Amino acid sequence: MTRPHRRHRRRTPPGSPPGTLIADPSAQAPTMRLMRYAPGRLDERVVADIVELGQSVAGDGVAWLDVDGLADVDLVRSVGGLFKVHNLALEDVVNVHQRPKVEVYDDHLFIVTRMPVSPASAETEQVAIFLGANYVLTFQERPGDCFDPVRERIRKGARIRELGADYLAYALIDASIDAYFPVLERHGEVVDELEAEVTSQPDDGMTRRIQGVKRDLLTLRRAIWPQREMVNALIRDESRFVTAQTRLYLRDCYDHVVQLVDILETYREIASGLIDIYLSSVSARMNEIMKLLTIIATIFIPLGFVAGLYGMNFDPSVSPWNMPELGWYWGYPFALGLMTAIGVGLLAFFYRRGWLGRRRRR
Amino acid sequence: MTRPHRRHRRRTPPGSPPGTLIADPSAQAPTMRLMRYAPGRLDERVVADIVELGQSVAGDGVAWLDVDGLADVDLVRSVGGLFKVHNLALEDVVNVHQRPKVEVYDDHLFIVTRMPVSPASAETEQVAIFLGANYVLTFQERPGDCFDPVRERIRKGARIRELGADYLAYALIDASIDAYFPVLERHGEVVDELEAEVTSQPDDGMTRRIQGVKRDLLTLRRAIWPQREMVNALIRDESRFVTAQTRLYLRDCYDHVVQLVDILETYREIASGLIDIYLSSVSARMNEIMKLLTIIATIFIPLGFVAGLYGMNFDPSVSPWNMPELGWYWGYPFALGLMTAIGVGLLAFFYRRGWLGRRRRR
Amino acid sequence: MTRPHRRHRRRTPPGSPPGTLIADPSAQAPTMRLMRYAPGRLDERVVADIVELGQSVAGDGVAWLDVDGLADVDLVRSVGGLFKVHNLALEDVVNVHQRPKVEVYDDHLFIVTRMPVSPASAETEQVAIFLGANYVLTFQERPGDCFDPVRERIRKGARIRELGADYLAYALIDASIDAYFPVLERHGEVVDELEAEVTSQPDDGMTRRIQGVKRDLLTLRRAIWPQREMVNALIRDESRFVTAQTRLYLRDCYDHVVQLVDILETYREIASGLIDIYLSSVSARMNEIMKLLTIIATIFIPLGFVAGLYGMNFDPSVSPWNMPELGWYWGYPFALGLMTAIGVGLLAFFYRRGWLGRRRRR
Amino acid sequence: MTRPHRRHRRRTPPGSPPGTLIADPSAQAPTMRLMRYAPGRLDERVVADIVELGQSVAGDGVAWLDVDGLADVDLVRSVGGLFKVHNLALEDVVNVHQRPKVEVYDDHLFIVTRMPVSPASAETEQVAIFLGANYVLTFQERPGDCFDPVRERIRKGARIRELGADYLAYALIDASIDAYFPVLERHGEVVDELEAEVTSQPDDGMTRRIQGVKRDLLTLRRAIWPQREMVNALIRDESRFVTAQTRLYLRDCYDHVVQLVDILETYREIASGLIDIYLSSVSARMNEIMKLLTIIATIFIPLGFVAGLYGMNFDPSVSPWNMPELGWYWGYPFALGLMTAIGVGLLAFFYRRGWLGRRRRR
Amino acid sequence: MTRPHRRHRRRTPPGSPPGTLIADPSAQAPTMRLMRYAPGRLDERVVADIVELGQSVAGDGVAWLDVDGLADVDLVRSVGGLFKVHNLALEDVVNVHQRPKVEVYDDHLFIVTRMPVSPASAETEQVAIFLGANYVLTFQERPGDCFDPVRERIRKGARIRELGADYLAYALIDASIDAYFPVLERHGEVVDELEAEVTSQPDDGMTRRIQGVKRDLLTLRRAIWPQREMVNALIRDESRFVTAQTRLYLRDCYDHVVQLVDILETYREIASGLIDIYLSSVSARMNEIMKLLTIIATIFIPLGFVAGLYGMNFDPSVSPWNMPELGWYWGYPFALGLMTAIGVGLLAFFYRRGWLGRRRRR
Repeated sequence: MTRPHRRHRRRTPPGSPPGTLIADPSAQAPTMRLMRYAPGRLDERVVADIVELGQSVAGDGVAWLDVDGLADVDLVRSVGGLFKVHNLALEDVVNVHQRPKVEVYDDHLFIVTRMPVSPASAETEQVAIFLGANYVLTFQERPGDCFDPVRERIRKGARIRELGADYLAYALIDASIDAYFPVLERHGEVVDELEAEVTSQPDDGMTRRIQGVKRDLLTLRRAIWPQREMVNALIRDESRFVTAQTRLYLRDCYDHVVQLVDILETYREIASGLIDIYLSSVSARMNEIMKLLTIIATIFIPLGFVAGLYGMNFDPSVSPWNMPELGWYWGYPFALGLMTAIGVGLLAFFYRRGWLGRRRRR
Repeated sequence: MTRPHRRHRRRTPPGSPPGTLIADPSAQAPTMRLMRYAPGRLDERVVADIVELGQSVAGDGVAWLDVDGLADVDLVRSVGGLFKVHNLALEDVVNVHQRPKVEVYDDHLFIVTRMPVSPASAETEQVAIFLGANYVLTFQERPGDCFDPVRERIRKGARIRELGADYLAYALIDASIDAYFPVLERHGEVVDELEAEVTSQPDDGMTRRIQGVKRDLLTLRRAIWPQREMVNALIRDESRFVTAQTRLYLRDCYDHVVQLVDILETYREIASGLIDIYLSSVSARMNEIMKLLTIIATIFIPLGFVAGLYGMNFDPSVSPWNMPELGWYWGYPFALGLMTAIGVGLLAFFYRRGWLGRRRRR
Repeated sequence: MTRPHRRHRRRTPPGSPPGTLIADPSAQAPTMRLMRYAPGRLDERVVADIVELGQSVAGDGVAWLDVDGLADVDLVRSVGGLFKVHNLALEDVVNVHQRPKVEVYDDHLFIVTRMPVSPASAETEQVAIFLGANYVLTFQERPGDCFDPVRERIRKGARIRELGADYLAYALIDASIDAYFPVLERHGEVVDELEAEVTSQPDDGMTRRIQGVKRDLLTLRRAIWPQREMVNALIRDESRFVTAQTRLYLRDCYDHVVQLVDILETYREIASGLIDIYLSSVSARMNEIMKLLTIIATIFIPLGFVAGLYGMNFDPSVSPWNMPELGWYWGYPFALGLMTAIGVGLLAFFYRRGWLGRRRRR
Repeated sequence: MTRPHRRHRRRTPPGSPPGTLIADPSAQAPTMRLMRYAPGRLDERVVADIVELGQSVAGDGVAWLDVDGLADVDLVRSVGGLFKVHNLALEDVVNVHQRPKVEVYDDHLFIVTRMPVSPASAETEQVAIFLGANYVLTFQERPGDCFDPVRERIRKGARIRELGADYLAYALIDASIDAYFPVLERHGEVVDELEAEVTSQPDDGMTRRIQGVKRDLLTLRRAIWPQREMVNALIRDESRFVTAQTRLYLRDCYDHVVQLVDILETYREIASGLIDIYLSSVSARMNEIMKLLTIIATIFIPLGFVAGLYGMNFDPSVSPWNMPELGWYWGYPFALGLMTAIGVGLLAFFYRRGWLGRRRRR
Repeated sequence: MTRPHRRHRRRTPPGSPPGTLIADPSAQAPTMRLMRYAPGRLDERVVADIVELGQSVAGDGVAWLDVDGLADVDLVRSVGGLFKVHNLALEDVVNVHQRPKVEVYDDHLFIVTRMPVSPASAETEQVAIFLGANYVLTFQERPGDCFDPVRERIRKGARIRELGADYLAYALIDASIDAYFPVLERHGEVVDELEAEVTSQPDDGMTRRIQGVKRDLLTLRRAIWPQREMVNALIRDESRFVTAQTRLYLRDCYDHVVQLVDILETYREIASGLIDIYLSSVSARMNEIMKLLTIIATIFIPLGFVAGLYGMNFDPSVSPWNMPELGWYWGYPFALGLMTAIGVGLLAFFYRRGWLGRRRRR
């Protein structure tokens, strides 16, 4: 679980006019892939530049242009111009830290969603989707996504070819949402491992790991929660871009988001309790250490005192009261016996208090 | 209280077309049981295959087909086809980690509920219910359920035979909800036991047990809360499948869910406080141990010092200032008296501070 | 403050037909008391059986039948039949763990409220109230209630006699709600006592007592909160059973519930903080103990070392370097001086750190 | 910050008929002050009894009767009768623990607000305001209030004289709300002081003081929060008693309450964190004490052992293996050297761990 | 991160008539800057007094008067009079602790927003904006703001010149909101640093720093949250002052506020967890210290006892039982061997418990 250390920077300087496009410093060079399809037909190609795009995009059927990489702000502006997309939406395309949302424009819907980058991390990548009458336009931060199964369904001529652009948009949203299930599963395993370790072998690095997974879950929460509103807005939306049939599928998609939220909040609650358990495990260990110290010290300090007592150098020759024990026939055995009695007595006291071996029994 | 370690896996891979049916890896082989009844008539049988089902299901009265086990995806699809059930709903039937919900389709209601597997565990089993005009179709994960009293009422020709399919659906939902009462009762006993033990004999395994019961209650919460919305949706629903009379019974059922939620949240709040009490019990014990160590060490370390003092080997023959006590007539008794005075003084100090025996008095 | 250990059992087995009446195992034998009144008239009697009841209940004016004890399920059913009360409501009458609520039926309102059993406990007793056109029917778990002042007002021919059955129902609800004020006052005193003790003399049993009062307040909360909704539902209700004038009185009653909730939440918040204060008091005590141990040990361990040093038996006759101090004229005073210097130095160090006596000063 | 220890007693016994007036045991003797004013005229007098009041109150302009002290229940009832005020409202006048609220009656609005008693305490005093067509009637618990600036504005013939009774009511509410600003400021200073002390010099009484200020803030919260609803209800209210112009002023007043709530919640959140900081300060001190103990004990216990070793009395004359060191020429220097080496080694170990002086550096 | 210690004082004394203007004690002398522009024209000047202002402000196009410094209450009143602004709004202009809000008056909108003073602090400065038909009036507490880019856009003759006063108001609000991004970024870095340090090198001042950043985030929260409502109110507002096109831009601005809130709450949640991590780090250190003390004391106290034992002075000449070991040939080696055996045995015990070096391994 790596902690995403990217700050949530807005690149556009405060006070700029709205619609100013400035590339994110980590943005990558773009590639464009176009899929045009109709029930009996499929044209898939990588588009080199805006001129070729202008030529290829016209015609009937559904067109899906997928732009990977947002470093070339001019290209983004040109593509936006070609599809007559609103400037404010384009600004959100290159500012890649948007929350998932839907915005209704006259000519198109603008949808922002986020998909996980890999199952092992909480990092997410912004996907901006424009849904028009017969096209879908997607902008991703970098190559590599979870849309290959959708592409495959288009290529295999499945039912998706018979349906409109809104169904394609649904399929993409659904794929990006379902991609969170393995991510949550992975984090759930980490939480379970931590929960098992925290009582059996709590160590120093544990707080750091617990805080790490809590932070990951917090990051995921920020990505997943707004998707719920986003899908819900699509379902309730009265625009002409989403058909009643697709709304039914979106309802299913909504169920999935609710399930994600449910699982996420469960893990968050469990993870929240871990610090408490860790602290109580550490307290229990401390208790055990203190008990040992107390037992050893409490037994040997009095014994040491007795030994010290008979190590005193009072002169027995001066008076019969000066350490007569030193001259007794059974003096040394008496002293040893005294010490044994003290030691056994204290052990019995500890045993009665249940400090010896009791831990084992439980 | 076993902790359910089943991960919340969605089996359908991300990007699949909606309505793809893939069996859960732990799904069991199906058995089908059909009950057809009308006020004066009952036909109950185990149905071997889809052909026999097609023949048996036609006719008047109410038909209840109960499918136990979801391993045979083809059978699920065939049964769904026979009752003209929507494909998206069938996907939810085999994905057995759904939250309770109601979905309205043109020809039927699709209801998902969850019933507890046994009173001693927080594990639940998904029950998918299709309610049509004159049929009820139920899909369970495995044999064994809480519906036997309902079957008995049908067999005994009770009032249920005179009422429609919606009343049967209500009876099943009511039975699955009432089955949570013993589960919560059992967990309440565990919480009470932990609360009693945590002050009387806190031990090492306690955090683990508290965390276990908290996790169980969290799991139950995820199963019970959405049932409230589910029953409420059925009551408010304007479809033709639920009659006004059944709505009255569902209101009663709603009361039961609210009561469950109420009890559950009470237990959760009590369980939440247990870790704090545990920590304060451990602190109190630590305190007691430290007190003993302090008393023993504080008394015997000064005494040991005095003994060590008179064990020094300064030569009294060199000067009258060199340890004259060693040559005194009452030297040794003086030393013993000094030690006794120190010991008694310290004990008096501890007694005044209330460190001796005070714990007993309280 | 006794902790109510009664589990929240629903007695009706899961899967029973709705309206099944099964007596609570702790239910008591019933007594019936009837009051029939009109402005100039009052007929009050204890009714022996259902036959006598049938004869006495007819006539004009307002009839209030109060049934104390729910062990006789048949009697409950007969009374219910006489007043034509719905079966589902009767099931709730004998299942005595209902949350306060209002249910509207065609012929009557069904109201469930809870009244405290005694000011010193958090236990509550269910009161089921049926409000019809000209009758009020109340079912209580056991004899003894907070309705005597209402009975007295009826007997004295006060204004209540001139008003309808809805005003009587209001008077009963108001009395049962006002009975919570002394209960909360008592628990508030306990919270205050605990708060005072927790800093002055924290002891072992304190966590148990704090948890006890928190649990009591939780129990009261479960009884009081739904009463707010209940009264509010009566105020907003559009049925013909509650007149506009009585609604005005119910608004006053609603104010009282809100005040109860307010007081309750304040106590809950204070009680929540007590565990923290307890832990910090215990920490402070531990600190004090450790400080004493540290002072004594830190002073006497070095002194003991010096004493031990001069107790070594190196032979001064072998070389001038072997413990020449032992043969010095001022050897012993020198050793004592060294020890005094070490002791005073350490005391000065502790004093500068403010470990000595500082606690007193504050 | 004194803690208000008055219990929240309702004096009217449970079951009393609504509208029963019983004086609070701490209620004071009443004084009545009447101000009658119109643009060019002002008549201000102290009214001795109800007869005089009846004579003085008639006429045009606005009449403000201010009753200070609620011990004389009969007077309250007479005044209420004179202004034809509802009995239920009068009950709330003498039960001085009401939450701020607005109630609409046919002839008047009934407003309850609370004003702080002094800036240094969280105690508040109930002010009951009746707003009629051309009169304002205020009941306060005791003499002394925050209305003198309003009286002054009336006396000086300011704009308030030209406006109606509703503006006067607004001015009184505004004055009582603004009086909370110095109270919160004072409590904010206490929170800041505690925050500064808790890290620099945490002491025993601190938990008590933190709990005290938390309790004060809780008390203030109970007084301030409902005022927000109260003012909002006045703004939204459709009755004829509040003019559109006064509504504009009330909107300003609403802003002030929201600001109060905002400040209050900020202080509450900071105060909540103080216990945690206190505990961590105490832990840090404990740590420091333990470190000192460990350093001293860890260094001197081994040294003491070496000294004890050479204090043993084995007889060197019996064998060359019996403590030959005692007879070495450099025996004593060797022993001293050994001890120095051990001491220096341990100090180096502690230094490397950063236990020495490191605290200073930070 | 400096903690803003300015108390939230309302300067207007309680009971003053509404609309009383009293300058904040820290208010600065005012300067006025006027920009009048239309598509092809720009007139920018510093205005000396109210007379010059009256002459300059008339004419067509959009006028933006920016007043920096609020010490001169008369000037504020004059300017307000010139633009016919409501008195209540002017009171809020000089009371500089308002929460962001929108108020609708007949002739203008009154908007309060707050902008950060510097990226390194949580302190904010109030900006009061009046938006009329063709003017914008801004009042700031002191010179220096985040509006320079907006001024630059006006000077450069950008698109802003072609749009109305409402677009200018939007641009100012947008600039003041975007200015929070660097502030949050800076605080996020502080939180990250603290999180890194708290596990690697927890020290005494850390609680103070954690509390400091929590308090800063709380202050920012009080400034940012109400801006969300403020922008939302502008979007939903039906007044004639905001055009549909500007509403679209405000929607974008709303997105930014939501993003700010999102980031802020994330940091707050992380910061909340830091105290827990700090406490657990301190506990872990304490544990380590106690372990060392226990190991040293537990090994050397028994060894010291053995040494003390053979330092006793029982007289071997009196009986063969008196310390015969002292006279053994291998006596001393035997004693040393015994001590070694005890030491090694205890070390083995500690090793088996994993107390030695185990920390390193992890």
